[in-house]
Amino acid sequence: MTHRYDIEGLKSRIDGIKTEDNPALVRQKSRDFFWYSPTLKRQLENVTGDILVSPASESEVLRVLAAAYELGIPVTPRGTGTGNYGQAMPLSGGVVLDMSGMDKVKEIGPGRLVAEPGAMLAKIDRQTRPHSGQELRLFPSTYATASLGGFIAGGSGGVGSIRWGGLRDAGNVLSLKVATMEASPRVLTLTGDDLHKVAHAYGTNGIITEVSVPLAPAYTWVDVIVGFDTLAAAAAYANALGEQDGLLLKELAVIAAPVPHDVFLRHQKFLPREKHIAVAMVAEHALDATLAFTRRFAGAEVLFRQDVMSPEELRGLPPAFELAWNHTTLRALRIDPSITYLQTLYPFPNQLDLVEKTRERFGDEVMAHLEFVRFDGKITCFGLPLVRFTSEERLDEIIRIHEDMGVPVFNPHRYTLEEGGMKQTDAVQLAFKREADPRGLLNPGKMIAWENPDYDYTSGKTYLFPGLADRAA
Amino acid sequence: MTHRYDIEGLKSRIDGIKTEDNPALVRQKSRDFFWYSPTLKRQLENVTGDILVSPASESEVLRVLAAAYELGIPVTPRGTGTGNYGQAMPLSGGVVLDMSGMDKVKEIGPGRLVAEPGAMLAKIDRQTRPHSGQELRLFPSTYATASLGGFIAGGSGGVGSIRWGGLRDAGNVLSLKVATMEASPRVLTLTGDDLHKVAHAYGTNGIITEVSVPLAPAYTWVDVIVGFDTLAAAAAYANALGEQDGLLLKELAVIAAPVPHDVFLRHQKFLPREKHIAVAMVAEHALDATLAFTRRFAGAEVLFRQDVMSPEELRGLPPAFELAWNHTTLRALRIDPSITYLQTLYPFPNQLDLVEKTRERFGDEVMAHLEFVRFDGKITCFGLPLVRFTSEERLDEIIRIHEDMGVPVFNPHRYTLEEGGMKQTDAVQLAFKREADPRGLLNPGKMIAWENPDYDYTSGKTYLFPGLADRAA
Repeated sequence: MTHRYDIEGLKSRIDGIKTEDNPALVRQKSRDFFWYSPTLKRQLENVTGDILVSPASESEVLRVLAAAYELGIPVTPRGTGTGNYGQAMPLSGGVVLDMSGMDKVKEIGPGRLVAEPGAMLAKIDRQTRPHSGQELRLFPSTYATASLGGFIAGGSGGVGSIRWGGLRDAGNVLSLKVATMEASPRVLTLTGDDLHKVAHAYGTNGIITEVSVPLAPAYTWVDVIVGFDTLAAAAAYANALGEQDGLLLKELAVIAAPVPHDVFLRHQKFLPREKHIAVAMVAEHALDATLAFTRRFAGAEVLFRQDVMSPEELRGLPPAFELAWNHTTLRALRIDPSITYLQTLYPFPNQLDLVEKTRERFGDEVMAHLEFVRFDGKITCFGLPLVRFTSEERLDEIIRIHEDMGVPVFNPHRYTLEEGGMKQTDAVQLAFKREADPRGLLNPGKMIAWENPDYDYTSGKTYLFPGLADRAA
Repeated sequence: MTHRYDIEGLKSRIDGIKTEDNPALVRQKSRDFFWYSPTLKRQLENVTGDILVSPASESEVLRVLAAAYELGIPVTPRGTGTGNYGQAMPLSGGVVLDMSGMDKVKEIGPGRLVAEPGAMLAKIDRQTRPHSGQELRLFPSTYATASLGGFIAGGSGGVGSIRWGGLRDAGNVLSLKVATMEASPRVLTLTGDDLHKVAHAYGTNGIITEVSVPLAPAYTWVDVIVGFDTLAAAAAYANALGEQDGLLLKELAVIAAPVPHDVFLRHQKFLPREKHIAVAMVAEHALDATLAFTRRFAGAEVLFRQDVMSPEELRGLPPAFELAWNHTTLRALRIDPSITYLQTLYPFPNQLDLVEKTRERFGDEVMAHLEFVRFDGKITCFGLPLVRFTSEERLDEIIRIHEDMGVPVFNPHRYTLEEGGMKQTDAVQLAFKREADPRGLLNPGKMIAWENPDYDYTSGKTYLFPGLADRAA
């Protein structure tokens, strides 16, 4: 195999650092869950790096960056590859920088943690819980395998957002150390508003080498599922439950019938096919009050309570958070590969109206999956609706209709930061890339503002990274 | 001294239980901070019980209730007497039931506490913090001396409400044991929505003998004071800070200039007279992010940061929460005895407009003191404005003007539940009083619905308990 880059030169310069260039293994580590999207599946199927490099320390990261900078080789950082939009896929090939070996928890204090970026979320909690009864505030449904650095670089919130908001919110990340891609790479410590320079930037403008995040008290969380006859009733209940400031929840989702029965196979016997459900994780000491609150809702039927079940009944059941966020999508895809999804926001204070209007507009083509969260101090919901896929054109049309209805879509069928986000240049991230990655070697193709400053986000067309076209050709 | 009641008969029936009938001591224990209100000061100045009874256990409470029931003697329960509306003042004399001796912490678990009602809040935290790094979610500014049972029977929220809402909210009280006033008193355990039967009922329909409340993680809280040139800027900052879901706060108040400089004497050197201030208690691990957030506000000036001060500088300074809630009122009263106050709500989403309109309408006659809280899932603020008192008529007029502007007033110049609250019969509490206190002997005169079912709350007149008129006569 020939490379566009001087991979042998790189290997000699980073002697002693773990590498892997078996093409099958490199290809495997060049992928994430991009295939949830039929569009990304088509576009990114052939993406692969040239070499996998697995640093064991910050100093090894700096050596890799210096060598790759000298040789002009792209570097795309990767945690454990649980992203959904090709965040960590090397569109221009080069180095896949596998951070999963840097997985040490460095410090646990009251309300805070310092860890290396490759530390897996579930493993962190397995240390913080016995240490001091603490756990992470926020995690994605891929908690079992996702890494802390990958979550911050490529995620936005998830389980815990009903209590704490999202990763973008002040206080949910305390500090980051970031290595720059220069002849002599520097390590910068970012705090406060400077965190926005690199958070959710897909590693396009720096390599995270250390993370500090707040910790929350660890409680026993009880999974509860409540059924309703209509989606509107389930959504109204969840919204009201979320607004109960005294009830400590960690997760609160609504999923429209018949999805729960059809795709939550291990929970199927608890879930009548016609029931729309609310799924909650409730602190043990809030359970009585939550059930009392639930009884105020006519038609609310408690379908599942983890606390009253025997170990035998619970055996093999996934935790509630693995019915939520993108695990809902995953379970649906396993049953019906023609399903895909969107990511939407139903802005406060019209969230319940917009959910209902969306249901009326699309019927079974778009099946509601709502994730209730705190957002700018109010309760509202994101959506990860399941979409019966027919064509990319219809998918784009569905997105346009949502946006015309006042439901913003964070398009999960795009691999760029801007198209999956706010559809505009992030001046702060762009400026930091100029400083930290002057040759544009970090995760190429993901930041349109860098690749094509004149790009027209209103064109209605999908951005195609020229480097990717080259590779596919 | 002659009594209307057979106090000697009572004493013989409760032999072995601690009592006190020295009139000066009984009078002292028949009072609270009712004198914050010029109206209540006039009405309640002569109120006193006939005997103080201090049970040491639930079984002693039951003996007292049975004996008093038999003899037709009123019983008014009292915690530590830190209320403000005569909640625990015996309008018809009789027994003052001093619960402060029942002060044991019975159980500390993950996220929950069980204690006797007389346990003082600060003393509880002194046990829960070393036990398991936990503390109470909510407390009044009288934390140092207030009792848990008194807080639940006579309070509504306070410090912690910016995070957890109020005592009325589901999940902020877990269970209560309540003794009834019958020939054979029963002890009932209330949970869920049944808690509303006796919470904030001033002990009119049962005697709380055990309390279970949730606990929050105990952190080091850092007092921060930020100054602004206008009230509107301070209020807008506090509202936005409160809406930061990732910033862990325990207290968030705004006080209009020149009050902070003029009445916070020990903090005076930090507080320029023209500065309107926001007072916050911030978790240590949220401090950096809070200060970064504060820097976004042009004109925001950090006037005080507890974390950067020396022990010498901090010596003698009260904690921030003793600048807030009714401690603001207390400090103002000490400087100027002609000051009184109101209790208001600025309903979401118009809170900032209403605060500004109130300022424009009243100028210096009503000086803003805002307490930001979570209320039905949103951030808004209560007010405890300081009022330059001229007459009871003008005070009533100020209240009417507030209510006409859309600012509900919870009148702190009334000793009845209804007039200080929702100005309507609480059917749940009334029904429970019929069951638990059929002879109407518990804390007489505080529940209008019991005393005068036909009372017209729209009359604009103050309810006067006939029993109180008898006593005053």
